[in-house]
Amino acid sequence: MSEIAENMAACIDELAVQSVLARYCHRCDDGDFAGLVDLFTPDGVFTYGDRTAHGRAELLAFFQGTQGRPDQRGKHLTFNLDVRPDGDTARSVSDYVFLRTSAHGPVLRLAGRYHDELRRVDGQWRIARRDVINLEVP
Amino acid sequence: MSEIAENMAACIDELAVQSVLARYCHRCDDGDFAGLVDLFTPDGVFTYGDRTAHGRAELLAFFQGTQGRPDQRGKHLTFNLDVRPDGDTARSVSDYVFLRTSAHGPVLRLAGRYHDELRRVDGQWRIARRDVINLEVP
Amino acid sequence: MSEIAENMAACIDELAVQSVLARYCHRCDDGDFAGLVDLFTPDGVFTYGDRTAHGRAELLAFFQGTQGRPDQRGKHLTFNLDVRPDGDTARSVSDYVFLRTSAHGPVLRLAGRYHDELRRVDGQWRIARRDVINLEVP
Repeated sequence: MSEIAENMAACIDELAVQSVLARYCHRCDDGDFAGLVDLFTPDGVFTYGDRTAHGRAELLAFFQGTQGRPDQRGKHLTFNLDVRPDGDTARSVSDYVFLRTSAHGPVLRLAGRYHDELRRVDGQWRIARRDVINLEVP
Repeated sequence: MSEIAENMAACIDELAVQSVLARYCHRCDDGDFAGLVDLFTPDGVFTYGDRTAHGRAELLAFFQGTQGRPDQRGKHLTFNLDVRPDGDTARSVSDYVFLRTSAHGPVLRLAGRYHDELRRVDGQWRIARRDVINLEVP
Repeated sequence: MSEIAENMAACIDELAVQSVLARYCHRCDDGDFAGLVDLFTPDGVFTYGDRTAHGRAELLAFFQGTQGRPDQRGKHLTFNLDVRPDGDTARSVSDYVFLRTSAHGPVLRLAGRYHDELRRVDGQWRIARRDVINLEVP
């Protein structure tokens, strides 16, 4: 491909990856865990501190355990997306905030960074690995 | 159009829609209500709970009523944009947070989701409908 | 260039600028000040209220002074990006929030707007000027 064609293909991929990461938040916060897990590759990995879920069955169990009850849920917000596509794979670094709502309005609960690897499978970008690194008290 | 050309046209539209939604926040928070209302189609609809504004005169009155005084204003922040262009229309789902500032720093006031329909009119993307769904205490 | 080719070039530039602004936040929050300052042009300008840093040596001193200790740092989050490329320059308006973490979770500290000018130098977009305007109590 010419350089301009390569750059344009990267743009298309970058926006597609942005949308996948947006849907991750929407589906998680809606409690749509089947839809959430479908955003991962079948062998997808999710790590959170010392916990790891590997494959869709473990991912489903993880999200149902941590976000299953409405009072566990809130809003996951993703920012500062730096997506780097490379053929049929992509890496993304972004920041996130998780808030819950309360009788007094929304309350910040967590902030951290997502380190993601994505893979194009049958023309669809899916999350192959997400590592969550929470911001710690210095 | 070829598939690649279609995908590229969709990229251009997706970024243009992202900019419209960014300007919505900027103009609202700046109190530029004429500019804000200009981002809507002439028959634009905005719903917020059980309130509906229909057309630019009602939109202007709505925003002046809810955001008219400086102490009513703050920052509208938009995240997790999932924009799906389809010819001269587009749908977008995103999350939002509204914060106000205080003597003690910024304070979260609201969080919710925007469900948007946009339309291309004379080459410009405009908001044809925005439904605001606030996050509720579970 | 044809109109479609121009629009596509603008898309590529817009996404490249978005990535630069994302990396600004990542590097600042990671305390990678050499990497942060490298995102600016050699004559880059940064203003924050009545303080101005001009050129990489002053930029480095500014960031080391305000973000040098881990307890000064947190997360810079950027939203509502409205990037307008124009040849080898671009303007961007965006909103930002800065939060720090505490034993009780993340705490909002600042919110404001970034007014940026970027320049393409040797094929790389760099920040030529960033003016930070904080949200004030009305």
